[in-house]
Amino acid sequence: MEHLKALIRDVPDFPMPGILFRDVTPLLRDPGGLRQVVDALAERYRDQRIDLVAGIESRGFLFGAPLALALGVGFVPIRKLGKLPAECISREYALEYGTNALEMHRDAVRPGERVLLIDDLLATGGTARAAAELVAELGGQIAEVAFVIELAFLNGRAALPGLPVHALMAY
Amino acid sequence: MEHLKALIRDVPDFPMPGILFRDVTPLLRDPGGLRQVVDALAERYRDQRIDLVAGIESRGFLFGAPLALALGVGFVPIRKLGKLPAECISREYALEYGTNALEMHRDAVRPGERVLLIDDLLATGGTARAAAELVAELGGQIAEVAFVIELAFLNGRAALPGLPVHALMAY
Repeated sequence: MEHLKALIRDVPDFPMPGILFRDVTPLLRDPGGLRQVVDALAERYRDQRIDLVAGIESRGFLFGAPLALALGVGFVPIRKLGKLPAECISREYALEYGTNALEMHRDAVRPGERVLLIDDLLATGGTARAAAELVAELGGQIAEVAFVIELAFLNGRAALPGLPVHALMAY
Repeated sequence: MEHLKALIRDVPDFPMPGILFRDVTPLLRDPGGLRQVVDALAERYRDQRIDLVAGIESRGFLFGAPLALALGVGFVPIRKLGKLPAECISREYALEYGTNALEMHRDAVRPGERVLLIDDLLATGGTARAAAELVAELGGQIAEVAFVIELAFLNGRAALPGLPVHALMAY
């Protein structure tokens, strides 16, 4: 899927000086771009007995919801603190300065369900690790952690030990 | 689509005391629930020459991205302040206490494009109005503003004068 890089926009110095941001909005705006991403992921996971797709707020929602539909399974949101209304479990993760936290509804995953975890981008892996820990705490099995883009030079896979990781394209 | 109300969870006192929150996460978790919502919207808009689906962060992403795929058109995110990396336009809207703001990329919509605006829930209409104004500022035409749920007693349609509004279910 490396040809889809033509639909990724590089934005220098966002969200802070020195960071080159990989912007997926041109890919989303292109009808064929989003279709190709979802089709490629659906093909990979169609025969892997996925029970649920869990997407990380917010850009993970954009790829996760269509993927869940394509696989014929349900979708579960993993959100920032305070956004989910019912009883939640939460997990903190480190940022460059301070910490942040993710939440899932306690009834989002049933023990033994095979969960495909998805986000748009793998950087240092802290967010995805916290999300995977939430799924595990509910008794779910991570079938794989999928990303549209991997910033390979940040070695985020090292933050996800023992978890299968897949990315459609890498920088 | 009123039968889908069985998949909407009522959560009292969220996000604040006295508010009955309509939680769509059980609908998303049900494979048939999300499918029925997307199919119903796709059927309504398939012959309406939609050029783009614009979804409002975050729950609008969950319904908007699959709908864009179903219609074979691109998706454009409308986000909270500071989330979009490239050049933006922004619009403030009133909350019960204070204000909030939404942003779109300046190149998200081209003049004359027919935009289907979507969010999960119509309450007072302030968010949707700000989003519609952003689309209009870029020269886009709002084909319709679509919601999964309408809280009809809040009369949010009054905040969207001159705009066609559609909701799949109402309370």
